[in-house]
Amino acid sequence: MPQGNPTYIPDDGLTTRARRNLPVLAVHTGDGKGKSTAAFGMALRAWNVGLDVAVFQFVKSAKWKVGEEAAFRQLGRLHDEQGIGGAVEWHKMGAGWSWTRKSREAGSDVDHAAAAADGWAEIARRLAAQRHQFYVLDEFTYPLKWGWVDVDDVVEVLFARPGHQHVVITGRDAPRRLTEAADLVTEMTKVKHPMDVGRKGQQGIEW
Amino acid sequence: MPQGNPTYIPDDGLTTRARRNLPVLAVHTGDGKGKSTAAFGMALRAWNVGLDVAVFQFVKSAKWKVGEEAAFRQLGRLHDEQGIGGAVEWHKMGAGWSWTRKSREAGSDVDHAAAAADGWAEIARRLAAQRHQFYVLDEFTYPLKWGWVDVDDVVEVLFARPGHQHVVITGRDAPRRLTEAADLVTEMTKVKHPMDVGRKGQQGIEW
Repeated sequence: MPQGNPTYIPDDGLTTRARRNLPVLAVHTGDGKGKSTAAFGMALRAWNVGLDVAVFQFVKSAKWKVGEEAAFRQLGRLHDEQGIGGAVEWHKMGAGWSWTRKSREAGSDVDHAAAAADGWAEIARRLAAQRHQFYVLDEFTYPLKWGWVDVDDVVEVLFARPGHQHVVITGRDAPRRLTEAADLVTEMTKVKHPMDVGRKGQQGIEW
Repeated sequence: MPQGNPTYIPDDGLTTRARRNLPVLAVHTGDGKGKSTAAFGMALRAWNVGLDVAVFQFVKSAKWKVGEEAAFRQLGRLHDEQGIGGAVEWHKMGAGWSWTRKSREAGSDVDHAAAAADGWAEIARRLAAQRHQFYVLDEFTYPLKWGWVDVDDVVEVLFARPGHQHVVITGRDAPRRLTEAADLVTEMTKVKHPMDVGRKGQQGIEW
Protein backbone atom coordinates (compact mmCIF):
# COMPACT_ATOMS: atom_id res chain seq x y z
CA MET A 1 0.00 0.00 0.00
CA PRO A 2 1.49 3.36 -0.97
CA GLN A 3 2.38 5.61 1.93
CA GLY A 4 1.12 9.15 1.48
CA ASN A 5 3.99 10.77 3.32
CA PRO A 6 6.76 12.25 1.21
CA THR A 7 10.21 12.09 2.80
CA TYR A 8 10.69 15.82 2.38
CA ILE A 9 8.85 18.82 1.02
CA PRO A 10 10.73 20.22 -1.97
CA ASP A 11 11.49 23.90 -2.23
CA ASP A 12 10.02 24.17 -5.73
CA GLY A 13 7.46 26.87 -5.07
CA LEU A 14 4.61 24.51 -5.99
CA THR A 15 1.52 24.02 -3.88
CA THR A 16 0.74 20.49 -2.75
CA ARG A 17 -2.10 20.43 -5.23
CA ALA A 18 0.13 21.49 -8.12
CA ARG A 19 2.74 18.94 -7.12
CA ARG A 20 0.10 16.24 -6.86
CA ASN A 21 -0.93 16.96 -10.39
CA LEU A 22 2.48 16.77 -12.03
CA PRO A 23 2.51 14.38 -14.98
CA VAL A 24 4.51 11.20 -14.44
CA LEU A 25 7.23 9.65 -16.57
CA ALA A 26 7.66 6.04 -15.46
CA VAL A 27 10.17 3.44 -16.63
CA HIS A 28 9.81 -0.30 -16.02
CA THR A 29 13.06 -2.06 -16.70
CA GLY A 30 15.08 -5.10 -15.60
CA ASP A 31 15.16 -8.70 -16.83
CA GLY A 32 12.14 -9.89 -14.84
CA LYS A 33 8.50 -10.40 -15.76
CA GLY A 34 5.86 -7.77 -15.26
CA LYS A 35 7.34 -4.71 -16.96
CA SER A 36 4.66 -4.52 -19.65
CA THR A 37 2.01 -6.17 -17.50
CA ALA A 38 2.43 -3.52 -14.81
CA ALA A 39 2.36 -0.77 -17.46
CA PHE A 40 -0.94 -2.12 -18.81
CA GLY A 41 -2.19 -2.36 -15.22
CA MET A 42 -1.40 1.35 -14.81
CA ALA A 43 -3.23 2.02 -18.07
CA LEU A 44 -6.23 0.16 -16.65
CA ARG A 45 -6.18 2.48 -13.67
CA ALA A 46 -5.90 5.51 -15.97
CA TRP A 47 -8.76 4.23 -18.15
CA ASN A 48 -10.89 3.88 -15.03
CA VAL A 49 -10.61 7.58 -14.16
CA GLY A 50 -11.45 8.51 -17.74
CA LEU A 51 -7.99 9.33 -19.08
CA ASP A 52 -7.44 9.00 -22.83
CA VAL A 53 -5.08 6.01 -23.16
CA ALA A 54 -2.77 5.23 -26.09
CA VAL A 55 -0.51 2.18 -26.28
CA PHE A 56 2.39 1.97 -28.73
CA GLN A 57 4.02 -1.44 -28.88
CA PHE A 58 7.49 -1.47 -30.39
CA VAL A 59 7.36 -5.16 -31.27
CA LYS A 60 8.72 -6.70 -34.44
CA SER A 61 5.99 -9.17 -35.23
CA ALA A 62 2.46 -8.25 -36.27
CA LYS A 63 1.42 -11.64 -34.91
CA TRP A 64 2.65 -10.80 -31.42
CA LYS A 65 -0.54 -10.19 -29.53
CA VAL A 66 -1.07 -9.98 -25.81
CA GLY A 67 -4.38 -10.53 -24.09
CA GLU A 68 -4.28 -6.96 -22.87
CA GLU A 69 -4.78 -5.72 -26.43
CA ALA A 70 -8.12 -7.50 -26.78
CA ALA A 71 -9.15 -6.52 -23.25
CA PHE A 72 -8.32 -2.85 -23.87
CA ARG A 73 -10.26 -2.91 -27.14
CA GLN A 74 -13.27 -4.01 -25.08
CA LEU A 75 -12.61 -1.22 -22.57
CA GLY A 76 -12.34 1.27 -25.43
CA ARG A 77 -15.68 -0.01 -26.70
CA LEU A 78 -17.21 0.56 -23.24
CA HIS A 79 -15.99 4.16 -23.52
CA ASP A 80 -17.24 4.71 -27.05
CA GLU A 81 -20.62 3.03 -26.61
CA GLN A 82 -21.47 3.66 -22.96
CA GLY A 83 -19.27 6.57 -21.93
CA ILE A 84 -17.52 4.46 -19.28
CA GLY A 85 -13.80 5.02 -18.62
CA GLY A 86 -11.43 6.66 -21.08
CA ALA A 87 -10.84 6.33 -24.81
CA VAL A 88 -8.33 3.69 -25.91
CA GLU A 89 -6.01 3.47 -28.91
CA TRP A 90 -3.68 0.51 -29.39
CA HIS A 91 -0.91 0.73 -31.98
CA LYS A 92 1.59 -1.95 -32.83
CA MET A 93 4.74 -1.61 -34.88
CA GLY A 94 4.56 -5.17 -36.18
CA ALA A 95 4.69 -5.02 -39.96
CA GLY A 96 3.76 -1.33 -39.88
CA TRP A 97 1.94 1.20 -37.73
CA SER A 98 -1.76 1.72 -38.38
CA TRP A 99 -1.27 5.36 -39.42
CA THR A 100 1.11 4.48 -42.25
CA ARG A 101 0.59 1.91 -45.00
CA LYS A 102 4.15 2.20 -46.22
CA SER A 103 5.78 -0.50 -44.17
CA ARG A 104 2.71 -2.74 -44.18
CA GLU A 105 2.89 -3.01 -47.96
CA ALA A 106 6.52 -3.95 -47.72
CA GLY A 107 5.47 -7.13 -45.95
CA SER A 108 8.22 -9.13 -44.33
CA ASP A 109 10.91 -6.85 -45.74
CA VAL A 110 9.84 -4.14 -43.31
CA ASP A 111 12.66 -1.93 -42.07
CA HIS A 112 12.31 -2.14 -38.29
CA ALA A 113 14.72 0.73 -37.68
CA ALA A 114 12.69 3.05 -39.91
CA ALA A 115 9.42 1.81 -38.43
CA ALA A 116 10.67 2.48 -34.89
CA ALA A 117 11.78 5.99 -35.89
CA ASP A 118 8.38 6.59 -37.52
CA GLY A 119 6.67 5.41 -34.33
CA TRP A 120 8.63 7.78 -32.15
CA ALA A 121 8.09 10.71 -34.56
CA GLU A 122 4.33 10.12 -34.36
CA ILE A 123 4.43 9.91 -30.56
CA ALA A 124 6.43 13.16 -30.41
CA ARG A 125 3.79 14.83 -32.61
CA ARG A 126 0.98 13.55 -30.39
CA LEU A 127 2.76 14.72 -27.23
CA ALA A 128 3.19 18.19 -28.74
CA ALA A 129 -0.52 18.21 -29.67
CA GLN A 130 -1.55 16.78 -26.26
CA ARG A 131 -3.51 14.14 -28.14
CA HIS A 132 -3.70 11.63 -25.26
CA GLN A 133 -3.38 11.70 -21.47
CA PHE A 134 -1.72 8.35 -20.75
CA TYR A 135 0.86 6.83 -23.09
CA VAL A 136 2.39 3.36 -22.86
CA LEU A 137 5.56 2.99 -24.96
CA ASP A 138 5.90 -0.76 -24.68
CA GLU A 139 9.30 -2.35 -25.41
CA PHE A 140 10.55 1.10 -26.36
CA THR A 141 13.98 0.63 -24.76
CA TYR A 142 14.99 -1.74 -27.59
CA PRO A 143 14.96 0.82 -30.43
CA LEU A 144 16.81 3.15 -28.05
CA LYS A 145 19.39 0.47 -27.31
CA TRP A 146 19.88 -0.35 -30.96
CA GLY A 147 20.26 3.32 -31.90
CA TRP A 148 17.14 3.37 -34.07
CA VAL A 149 15.75 6.21 -31.98
CA ASP A 150 17.95 8.88 -30.40
CA VAL A 151 17.86 8.85 -26.60
CA ASP A 152 18.68 12.54 -26.25
CA ASP A 153 15.83 13.48 -28.57
CA VAL A 154 13.44 11.26 -26.58
CA VAL A 155 14.49 12.76 -23.25
CA GLU A 156 14.21 16.29 -24.63
CA VAL A 157 10.73 15.73 -26.07
CA LEU A 158 9.51 14.01 -22.91
CA PHE A 159 10.97 16.69 -20.69
CA ALA A 160 9.34 19.45 -22.71
CA ARG A 161 5.98 17.75 -23.20
CA PRO A 162 3.18 20.24 -22.54
CA GLY A 163 0.13 19.87 -20.32
CA HIS A 164 -0.55 16.86 -18.17
CA GLN A 165 0.47 13.74 -20.08
CA HIS A 166 1.65 10.60 -18.30
CA VAL A 167 4.14 8.35 -20.09
CA VAL A 168 5.19 4.81 -19.16
CA ILE A 169 8.12 3.20 -20.97
CA THR A 170 8.98 -0.50 -20.70
CA GLY A 171 11.85 -2.76 -21.70
CA ARG A 172 15.18 -4.15 -20.55
CA ASP A 173 18.36 -2.10 -20.35
CA ALA A 174 16.72 1.32 -20.12
CA PRO A 175 19.39 3.92 -20.99
CA ARG A 176 20.72 5.85 -18.02
CA ARG A 177 19.72 9.21 -19.50
CA LEU A 178 16.15 7.97 -19.66
CA THR A 179 16.02 6.67 -16.09
CA GLU A 180 17.63 9.91 -14.90
CA ALA A 181 14.85 11.87 -16.58
CA ALA A 182 12.10 9.60 -15.21
CA ASP A 183 10.07 10.29 -12.08
CA LEU A 184 9.39 6.65 -11.30
CA VAL A 185 11.78 3.83 -12.15
CA THR A 186 11.05 0.23 -11.19
CA GLU A 187 13.34 -2.66 -11.90
CA MET A 188 11.68 -6.03 -12.29
CA THR A 189 14.14 -8.73 -11.30
CA LYS A 190 13.64 -12.34 -12.19
CA VAL A 191 14.00 -14.49 -9.10
CA LYS A 192 12.51 -17.65 -10.54
CA HIS A 193 10.74 -18.43 -13.79
CA PRO A 194 8.93 -21.59 -14.92
CA MET A 195 10.83 -21.54 -18.23
CA ASP A 196 14.05 -22.03 -16.27
CA VAL A 197 12.88 -25.50 -15.40
CA GLY A 198 11.68 -26.29 -18.89
CA ARG A 199 8.08 -25.20 -18.59
CA LYS A 200 6.44 -23.54 -21.52
CA GLY A 201 4.53 -20.31 -21.72
CA GLN A 202 0.77 -20.68 -21.81
CA GLN A 203 -2.28 -18.74 -22.93
CA GLY A 204 -3.78 -16.55 -20.23
CA ILE A 205 -0.47 -16.39 -18.40
CA GLU A 206 2.22 -15.41 -20.89
CA TRP A 207 0.04 -13.74 -23.48
CA MET B 1 9.35 -10.11 -25.18
CA PRO B 2 9.24 -13.57 -23.62
CA GLN B 3 11.56 -16.09 -25.16
CA GLY B 4 9.89 -19.40 -25.89
CA ASN B 5 13.01 -21.48 -25.41
CA PRO B 6 13.38 -23.25 -22.10
CA THR B 7 16.96 -23.58 -20.93
CA TYR B 8 16.59 -27.32 -20.55
CA ILE B 9 13.96 -30.00 -20.98
CA PRO B 10 13.15 -31.53 -17.60
CA ASP B 11 13.07 -35.26 -17.10
CA ASP B 12 9.60 -35.21 -15.56
CA GLY B 13 7.87 -37.59 -17.96
CA LEU B 14 5.46 -34.86 -19.08
CA THR B 15 4.74 -34.07 -22.69
CA THR B 16 5.37 -30.49 -23.82
CA ARG B 17 1.62 -30.01 -23.96
CA ALA B 18 1.11 -31.25 -20.40
CA ARG B 19 3.98 -29.09 -19.18
CA ARG B 20 2.57 -26.09 -21.01
CA ASN B 21 -0.68 -26.54 -19.19
CA LEU B 22 0.65 -26.73 -15.65
CA PRO B 23 -1.04 -24.26 -13.34
CA VAL B 24 1.17 -21.40 -12.20
CA LEU B 25 1.87 -20.13 -8.70
CA ALA B 26 3.40 -16.65 -9.02
CA VAL B 27 4.74 -14.34 -6.32
CA HIS B 28 5.37 -10.61 -6.81
CA THR B 29 7.47 -9.25 -4.01
CA GLY B 30 10.08 -6.53 -3.27
CA ASP B 31 9.74 -2.93 -2.13
CA GLY B 32 9.08 -1.47 -5.58
CA LYS B 33 5.91 -0.46 -7.38
CA GLY B 34 4.02 -2.74 -9.68
CA LYS B 35 3.52 -5.88 -7.59
CA SER B 36 -0.27 -5.58 -7.46
CA THR B 37 -0.49 -3.71 -10.75
CA ALA B 38 1.30 -6.53 -12.57
CA ALA B 39 -0.91 -9.11 -10.82
CA PHE B 40 -4.03 -7.28 -12.01
CA GLY B 41 -2.44 -7.06 -15.46
CA MET B 42 -2.08 -10.85 -15.43
CA ALA B 43 -5.70 -11.11 -14.33
CA LEU B 44 -6.66 -8.95 -17.31
CA ARG B 45 -4.89 -11.41 -19.57
CA ALA B 46 -6.63 -14.33 -17.86
CA TRP B 47 -10.02 -12.58 -18.17
CA ASN B 48 -9.37 -12.10 -21.86
CA VAL B 49 -9.06 -15.85 -22.50
CA GLY B 50 -12.23 -16.49 -20.52
CA LEU B 51 -10.76 -17.69 -17.23
CA ASP B 52 -12.87 -17.25 -14.10
CA VAL B 53 -11.02 -14.58 -12.10
CA ALA B 54 -11.25 -13.95 -8.34
CA VAL B 55 -9.37 -11.22 -6.51
CA PHE B 56 -8.92 -11.26 -2.72
CA GLN B 57 -7.42 -8.08 -1.32
CA PHE B 58 -5.94 -8.44 2.15
CA VAL B 59 -6.15 -4.72 2.89
CA LYS B 60 -7.12 -3.22 6.22
CA SER B 61 -9.31 -0.37 5.08
CA ALA B 62 -12.68 -0.76 3.39
CA LYS B 63 -12.07 2.66 1.86
CA TRP B 64 -8.91 1.50 0.10
CA LYS B 65 -9.98 1.22 -3.49
CA VAL B 66 -7.86 0.88 -6.57
CA GLY B 67 -8.99 1.79 -10.06
CA GLU B 68 -8.57 -1.83 -11.08
CA GLU B 69 -11.51 -2.82 -8.90
CA ALA B 70 -13.91 -0.60 -10.81
CA ALA B 71 -12.39 -1.62 -14.14
CA PHE B 72 -12.69 -5.32 -13.32
CA ARG B 73 -16.30 -4.86 -12.25
CA GLN B 74 -16.91 -3.48 -15.75
CA LEU B 75 -15.10 -6.45 -17.27
CA GLY B 76 -17.20 -8.81 -15.14
CA ARG B 77 -20.30 -7.04 -16.41
CA LEU B 78 -19.10 -7.58 -20.02
CA HIS B 79 -18.88 -11.28 -19.18
CA ASP B 80 -22.26 -11.48 -17.47
CA GLU B 81 -24.16 -9.40 -20.02
CA GLN B 82 -22.37 -10.11 -23.30
CA GLY B 83 -20.46 -13.32 -22.69
CA ILE B 84 -17.12 -11.60 -23.32
CA GLY B 85 -14.09 -12.67 -21.29
CA GLY B 86 -14.26 -14.49 -17.98
CA ALA B 87 -16.33 -14.07 -14.83
CA VAL B 88 -14.92 -11.71 -12.18
CA GLU B 89 -15.28 -11.65 -8.40
CA TRP B 90 -13.54 -8.99 -6.31
CA HIS B 91 -13.36 -9.44 -2.53
CA LYS B 92 -11.77 -7.07 -0.06
CA MET B 93 -10.95 -7.71 3.55
CA GLY B 94 -11.49 -4.09 4.58
CA ALA B 95 -13.98 -4.05 7.41
CA GLY B 96 -15.08 -7.59 6.53
CA TRP B 97 -15.26 -9.99 3.60
CA SER B 98 -18.43 -9.96 1.51
CA TRP B 99 -19.26 -13.58 2.43
CA THR B 100 -19.36 -12.89 6.16
CA ARG B 101 -21.30 -10.16 7.93
CA LYS B 102 -19.60 -10.83 11.24
CA SER B 103 -16.68 -8.47 11.00
CA ARG B 104 -18.59 -5.84 9.04
CA GLU B 105 -21.01 -5.42 11.93
CA ALA B 106 -18.08 -4.99 14.28
CA GLY B 107 -17.22 -1.79 12.45
CA SER B 108 -13.88 -0.27 13.26
CA ASP B 109 -13.20 -2.82 15.99
CA VAL B 110 -12.68 -5.46 13.32
CA ASP B 111 -10.09 -8.08 14.22
CA HIS B 112 -7.75 -8.02 11.22
CA ALA B 113 -5.97 -11.20 12.28
CA ALA B 114 -9.25 -13.12 12.40
CA ALA B 115 -10.43 -11.54 9.16
CA ALA B 116 -7.21 -12.54 7.39
CA ALA B 117 -7.55 -16.11 8.69
CA ASP B 118 -11.19 -16.19 7.52
CA GLY B 119 -10.09 -14.95 4.11
CA TRP B 120 -7.49 -17.65 3.71
CA ALA B 121 -9.91 -20.37 4.95
CA GLU B 122 -12.40 -19.31 2.27
CA ILE B 123 -9.72 -19.30 -0.43
CA ALA B 124 -8.58 -22.78 0.65
CA ARG B 125 -12.21 -24.00 0.38
CA ARG B 126 -12.55 -22.48 -3.08
CA LEU B 127 -9.26 -24.01 -4.24
CA ALA B 128 -10.43 -27.43 -3.03
CA ALA B 129 -13.72 -26.93 -4.87
CA GLN B 130 -11.97 -25.55 -7.98
CA ARG B 131 -14.31 -22.60 -7.83
CA HIS B 132 -12.17 -20.23 -9.92
CA GLN B 133 -9.37 -20.51 -12.47
CA PHE B 134 -7.25 -17.45 -11.70
CA TYR B 135 -6.80 -16.16 -8.13
CA VAL B 136 -5.10 -12.93 -7.08
CA LEU B 137 -4.20 -12.89 -3.36
CA ASP B 138 -3.28 -9.22 -3.15
CA GLU B 139 -1.13 -8.04 -0.21
CA PHE B 140 -1.32 -11.59 1.16
CA THR B 141 2.31 -11.63 2.35
CA TYR B 142 1.43 -9.28 5.23
CA PRO B 143 -0.87 -11.69 7.15
CA LEU B 144 1.78 -14.34 6.54
CA LYS B 145 4.50 -12.06 7.90
CA TRP B 146 2.46 -11.12 10.94
CA GLY B 147 1.63 -14.76 11.69
CA TRP B 148 -2.11 -14.30 11.14
CA VAL B 149 -2.07 -17.05 8.54
CA ASP B 150 0.26 -20.05 8.75
CA VAL B 151 2.78 -20.18 5.91
CA ASP B 152 3.13 -23.97 6.02
CA ASP B 153 -0.61 -24.40 5.72
CA VAL B 154 -0.69 -22.02 2.75
CA VAL B 155 2.14 -23.79 0.97
CA GLU B 156 0.55 -27.19 1.60
CA VAL B 157 -2.86 -26.11 0.30
CA LEU B 158 -1.36 -24.40 -2.75
CA PHE B 159 0.86 -27.35 -3.51
CA ALA B 160 -2.05 -29.80 -3.30
CA ARG B 161 -4.58 -27.64 -5.16
CA PRO B 162 -6.47 -29.77 -7.68
CA GLY B 163 -7.10 -29.13 -11.35
CA HIS B 164 -5.73 -26.15 -13.22
CA GLN B 165 -5.92 -23.12 -10.96
CA HIS B 166 -3.45 -20.23 -11.30
CA VAL B 167 -2.59 -18.24 -8.17
CA VAL B 168 -0.75 -14.92 -7.95
CA ILE B 169 0.34 -13.62 -4.54
CA THR B 170 1.61 -10.07 -3.97
CA GLY B 171 3.29 -8.16 -1.15
CA ARG B 172 6.65 -7.26 0.36
CA ASP B 173 8.79 -9.72 2.26
CA ALA B 174 7.35 -12.91 0.80
CA PRO B 175 8.34 -15.77 3.11
CA ARG B 176 11.07 -18.02 1.78
CA ARG B 177 8.90 -21.15 1.98
CA LEU B 178 6.39 -19.45 -0.28
CA THR B 179 8.90 -18.32 -2.90
CA GLU B 180 10.46 -21.78 -2.85
CA ALA B 181 7.06 -23.28 -3.61
CA ALA B 182 6.32 -20.75 -6.37
CA ASP B 183 6.90 -21.32 -10.08
CA LEU B 184 7.41 -17.66 -10.91
CA VAL B 185 8.92 -15.14 -8.51
CA THR B 186 9.51 -11.53 -9.52
CA GLU B 187 11.03 -8.93 -7.28
CA MET B 188 9.99 -5.35 -7.95
CA THR B 189 12.79 -3.04 -6.85
CA LYS B 190 12.29 0.66 -6.37
CA VAL B 191 14.94 2.57 -8.25
CA LYS B 192 13.31 5.97 -8.07
CA HIS B 193 9.90 7.14 -6.89
CA PRO B 194 8.25 10.58 -7.17
CA MET B 195 7.35 10.50 -3.47
CA ASP B 196 11.06 10.46 -2.66
CA VAL B 197 11.27 14.00 -3.93
CA GLY B 198 8.14 15.17 -2.19
CA ARG B 199 5.60 14.49 -4.91
CA LYS B 200 2.19 13.22 -3.94
CA GLY B 201 0.25 10.26 -5.23
CA GLN B 202 -2.44 11.09 -7.73
CA GLN B 203 -5.63 9.62 -9.08
CA GLY B 204 -5.15 7.49 -12.17
CA ILE B 205 -1.54 6.79 -11.24
CA GLU B 206 -1.44 5.62 -7.64
CA TRP B 207 -5.01 4.37 -7.30
